[in-house]
Amino acid sequence: MEAIDPALGCRGFTAGGTAAGIKKGDMPDLGMIACPDGAAVAGVFTRNTVRAAPVVLDERRAARGVCRGVIANSGNANCCTGEQGIQDARAMAAIAGKALGVNDREMLVASTGVIGQMLDVSKIESAMPALAASLAADGFPAFSRAIMTTDTFPKAEARRVSVGGDSFTVLGVAKGAGMIQPNMATMLCFVCTDIRASSEELSGVLAPGVDASFNRISVDGDMSTNDTVLLMAAGKSSLDFGSNRDAFTDALNDVLLSLARAMVRDGEGATKVVTVEVAGAASGDDANTVAYQIANSPLVKTAFYGEDANWGRLIAAAGSTGVPMNPERFDVYFDDVQVAKNGLAVPGIEAAATTVFKKPEYTVRLVMHMGDGEASVLTCDLSHEYVSINADYRT
Amino acid sequence: MEAIDPALGCRGFTAGGTAAGIKKGDMPDLGMIACPDGAAVAGVFTRNTVRAAPVVLDERRAARGVCRGVIANSGNANCCTGEQGIQDARAMAAIAGKALGVNDREMLVASTGVIGQMLDVSKIESAMPALAASLAADGFPAFSRAIMTTDTFPKAEARRVSVGGDSFTVLGVAKGAGMIQPNMATMLCFVCTDIRASSEELSGVLAPGVDASFNRISVDGDMSTNDTVLLMAAGKSSLDFGSNRDAFTDALNDVLLSLARAMVRDGEGATKVVTVEVAGAASGDDANTVAYQIANSPLVKTAFYGEDANWGRLIAAAGSTGVPMNPERFDVYFDDVQVAKNGLAVPGIEAAATTVFKKPEYTVRLVMHMGDGEASVLTCDLSHEYVSINADYRT
Repeated sequence: MEAIDPALGCRGFTAGGTAAGIKKGDMPDLGMIACPDGAAVAGVFTRNTVRAAPVVLDERRAARGVCRGVIANSGNANCCTGEQGIQDARAMAAIAGKALGVNDREMLVASTGVIGQMLDVSKIESAMPALAASLAADGFPAFSRAIMTTDTFPKAEARRVSVGGDSFTVLGVAKGAGMIQPNMATMLCFVCTDIRASSEELSGVLAPGVDASFNRISVDGDMSTNDTVLLMAAGKSSLDFGSNRDAFTDALNDVLLSLARAMVRDGEGATKVVTVEVAGAASGDDANTVAYQIANSPLVKTAFYGEDANWGRLIAAAGSTGVPMNPERFDVYFDDVQVAKNGLAVPGIEAAATTVFKKPEYTVRLVMHMGDGEASVLTCDLSHEYVSINADYRT
Repeated sequence: MEAIDPALGCRGFTAGGTAAGIKKGDMPDLGMIACPDGAAVAGVFTRNTVRAAPVVLDERRAARGVCRGVIANSGNANCCTGEQGIQDARAMAAIAGKALGVNDREMLVASTGVIGQMLDVSKIESAMPALAASLAADGFPAFSRAIMTTDTFPKAEARRVSVGGDSFTVLGVAKGAGMIQPNMATMLCFVCTDIRASSEELSGVLAPGVDASFNRISVDGDMSTNDTVLLMAAGKSSLDFGSNRDAFTDALNDVLLSLARAMVRDGEGATKVVTVEVAGAASGDDANTVAYQIANSPLVKTAFYGEDANWGRLIAAAGSTGVPMNPERFDVYFDDVQVAKNGLAVPGIEAAATTVFKKPEYTVRLVMHMGDGEASVLTCDLSHEYVSINADYRT
């Protein structure tokens, strides 16, 4: 497996982006990935009870197992828009399908942006000639810019695996940057591959891949209204999934995890990327609960931002979960510096602990000594910039 | 019932405060409430698994039903301090008991501040003469200043109820200002009354009073390591609890609710006080879950701060709870402005909605049309100042 430039594209797909005027200013806000010869498809969608129109439509369409492309906009989530919203999502797909000359019921749709406002489909119709003209094998970077909302950089990753005289590519593009409760900010991810695979084969590896990547930077069950991950296989390689299952799974997981890390690094206003590890919990579930509580505590996250090596806040967050624990057995480490032993401060390590907290990336580790349960979560700090970005989002 | 100046005090109690050098600078950080003739006492303590030494000590001592006073410090939480911490809490009580000439096992202790550092009891011993000299019937305002941490103003409330030729007073002092997950910042509250009451009678009204006040501004079960509410009755009035149960309960609840509101108003960096109401949920528990999810959502709270009347974020937070709901039946109101009807934006109300969001206090109301479940939670916005306060807390 080698990392390659996403601009090299993926056989069977073209991509592009343009500015349709949905966002204010002349920003790219409309993108398309096209696979007019068809691709097998699998999807993972938000578990939020409130589901945006494109999610409702895609889930139904992806279940059929085949698609001809995806059209995606930023600036408007097409959520809380009722029956009109569903019609607008269908209309978007129809406009795209017509431009590609394919059955528009095989087009998928994604939206991200403000909730509760009707989408102006006429803007998409007007922009379609420019969007269609932008489609190119090397158009994935342009597509990735068109789906950004509060992201400060576009996110695309590609891997190529050579087998015998041929190869297959896994190319993923994503957007998302909300990090206090990351799933509350929409996460979109589109992964293209040229391997030969069925929709069922793709489904079988996509769900665990998402669990091990995007779901490790987020609170289970607390997703936004629009979260969508699509995996599309155009079958232009001579290589097939069945003979390359492990290599394909590795490449897919590597792409998903790299995109998830990029989201944390781009956490709204983030200045630190912190891995929260919990070990020695009574169970894996307990470890998970404690790790997420620490990773999502605003008091912990502001301490990260302030470079304040305040292990007491980690302990307090752990204790608030109610999972079985004995604080007098807690050991706490910041990277390799042990700051607490048996629940008590280790004397004389304040300077070393502060040095760790001044780094841009580090690990905080709580060892509970209750059992074998382990968990790890990626998080970032809570900065002034987070507040600015989210307070001014619609203005 | 009349509201009176807390400086008028409460028969049977004196109070005071001084600077002991536990905090940096020459700030008040040590306070005492004294009732050397004895008072019946009841307490409510944190449910966090990690419990500070003074909480462990007080819970045991308050269970005996009688106390002679409370000594409290800010600047150090005496938490995660192990057996030494318990000894230090006992030593604090002993120093105070000696100064008052009472059995030091009947002295209670409270601490708030940084976790994981040993308390320097010698500073308390050195400051005791000044603290004892400060004790006075009108010393409650000085006491309330001594227990502040990130609070920007001291919090004290008093009510007097006249019955026949006598009266009873309920006087409460509190500290606390953390508001993203409010229980993560320590809340201390001390309520004094001169009514004649037993410890059991006090317990019977304190728990429901706390549930209806401090627990309405917080996430159930997610408390700090030091949270403590004490209710002490010195019995210097001729009036007794048994004959005045309703009037006393009203006065107590009024004091507790006023102190809880003051904490929200003083939420770290808060510029808005917002009541989140949820009605028409399938059950009261569902309404509670949804109301807290909205009240604690960083995306909602930054929208409050940014005066961005973004009802979509409320809906998304509600949907992320997983409780039974049909978003197509949602009605949303900002004060009396209906911004969403049947899950869709009401046209033409953006200006009116924004006018509400520009007010310092307002109500957001979600009507779910699923049943009769109702809940109400007080919250505040998430501002730049919150991040500053918590990032720089120990420096």
